[in-house]
Amino acid sequence: MREDEVLKNVRAIFDYGQSDSALIVGNGDDGAVLGPRSELTVLASDMAVEGIHFNFAWSSAMQVGRKVSAANLADICAMGGWPEYFLVALAFPPSFSGQVLELAKGIKNECQRVGVKVIGGDLSRSNEVVISISAIGRVKRPILRSGAKVGERLFISNLPGFSQAGLSLLKSSSDNQSPAANRARMAHLAPDLDYEKYRKSYEYLSSAIDTSDGLVIDASRIATASGVGIDIRVEALINAPEFSELESASGSRESALESALYGGEDHLLLATSDAQDFGFLEIGQVIKGDGIYLDGVRTKTSGGYQHSW
Amino acid sequence: MREDEVLKNVRAIFDYGQSDSALIVGNGDDGAVLGPRSELTVLASDMAVEGIHFNFAWSSAMQVGRKVSAANLADICAMGGWPEYFLVALAFPPSFSGQVLELAKGIKNECQRVGVKVIGGDLSRSNEVVISISAIGRVKRPILRSGAKVGERLFISNLPGFSQAGLSLLKSSSDNQSPAANRARMAHLAPDLDYEKYRKSYEYLSSAIDTSDGLVIDASRIATASGVGIDIRVEALINAPEFSELESASGSRESALESALYGGEDHLLLATSDAQDFGFLEIGQVIKGDGIYLDGVRTKTSGGYQHSW
Repeated sequence: MREDEVLKNVRAIFDYGQSDSALIVGNGDDGAVLGPRSELTVLASDMAVEGIHFNFAWSSAMQVGRKVSAANLADICAMGGWPEYFLVALAFPPSFSGQVLELAKGIKNECQRVGVKVIGGDLSRSNEVVISISAIGRVKRPILRSGAKVGERLFISNLPGFSQAGLSLLKSSSDNQSPAANRARMAHLAPDLDYEKYRKSYEYLSSAIDTSDGLVIDASRIATASGVGIDIRVEALINAPEFSELESASGSRESALESALYGGEDHLLLATSDAQDFGFLEIGQVIKGDGIYLDGVRTKTSGGYQHSW
Repeated sequence: MREDEVLKNVRAIFDYGQSDSALIVGNGDDGAVLGPRSELTVLASDMAVEGIHFNFAWSSAMQVGRKVSAANLADICAMGGWPEYFLVALAFPPSFSGQVLELAKGIKNECQRVGVKVIGGDLSRSNEVVISISAIGRVKRPILRSGAKVGERLFISNLPGFSQAGLSLLKSSSDNQSPAANRARMAHLAPDLDYEKYRKSYEYLSSAIDTSDGLVIDASRIATASGVGIDIRVEALINAPEFSELESASGSRESALESALYGGEDHLLLATSDAQDFGFLEIGQVIKGDGIYLDGVRTKTSGGYQHSW
């Protein structure tokens, strides 16, 4: 297939139908053009590479499209923003050309959950599938990593660890088909993020980060940026209503806790607040000093997912 | 090297020093935040893949950084805009880790020519080097592909074809070290685009496109979008002051003309206008009908660079 043809088919999938008075020029020119913007604009970029972020041995092209989209949407939400537009750059080898439209549909499906429109991008040939998305959104009050204050509480939108537990099940080709195991697999393959829950929490948050690399390492990023320490209460994770499900998917309590503390790619909202009862899980305290503590004991922050070269 | 370390070094290169009151949150959080924008915002995305868009057998990492940046800047200019910010996503294998800072410097150098700041991005491991940039700019009056009107003239910012001629020299390992040959090689490796010349032309242009895939195919995109035909005057290319240099780099008049008509990656501004004498090369006419003509003879528009899968 030639580029013009692929481009035409991909654009047809991304066609957003209804008009948008804020979008002056959409897909199909050298660039897209947005109208004047009275609110602040938030921008983020997230790339996913075959064999690193996803694996077609267990992910469908549609799931990969959903997952990389979710990672970008979560970045915008972690700034206290709401996503509006995507630029999507795709590189793929000839062997993948039969699946590229499924990948595009995955992106489109996730976008439709929050009303995001794909307004541009690029296509290239490559040897491995690479998806790079830039997300554009609006934000009233940016929520930064640096906003945590001593005495506030640490919250997370849901119990973390399911993505890591799912990845372990997939890697070991486990035949565990329990609902808990299948939920964990899905959390890794195409997480079902509750963007509305994220949005409703913004008014309560003093700092926030998307948990892409793991609870401890992402908490340490808030701590470093805010010049504070964070004490995570392990019992709060273990007592979370979903912990038994995570334990069942992980095979042991120990492994479940390891996933909850260090597993990446959940794309939950980890945040600090002086409020309570806004639907998040309370899991710790912002304290004086620096670094991350587990029940008062200082812990290393080198766990969690990091690329290395 | 671990991700946090690479990220720190890359960010140090992209550090833009002086403050920018329009940039509320820069690099280092989940996303960047821009202030309210009274002008229109233009967005474009361009991806470059090792072995497809560049080849380290003859390109330095710095040249690759400059080239992919230039392609993005040219997209913004082709909309009649002026670039302000980049989001840069880089994927690379361990074998490239010693060169990633050179690549970042190449991006930074090209950005500094137009005052662009890198305000975010992503890093990933991969098997081949992939660079995906999203460019954000401002625009007063978007210049679209669809604006060409019958009777207008066709212009290009400079004679096209040098990038293709340079690629041929590089591919054949030619030992031609004439100034013309070296200029052609540089046009391919790291084009030296005259962004100010692009900007000064905006007021005269009715339509524009960045010549990334070749004069004929890019002209056909203007023709299709505008519902017109375009007649390219071959003599205007041959009579251009720089044609003899292109001929010298290409080895023959025939090969030079082939490069000028069908060679890609020059990233020149191809445009239509009812004006004259604004420093561009006049190379044809907008005519009734459709398709591309060379001296009145209809030609195929399937030449020029196209990815295929």
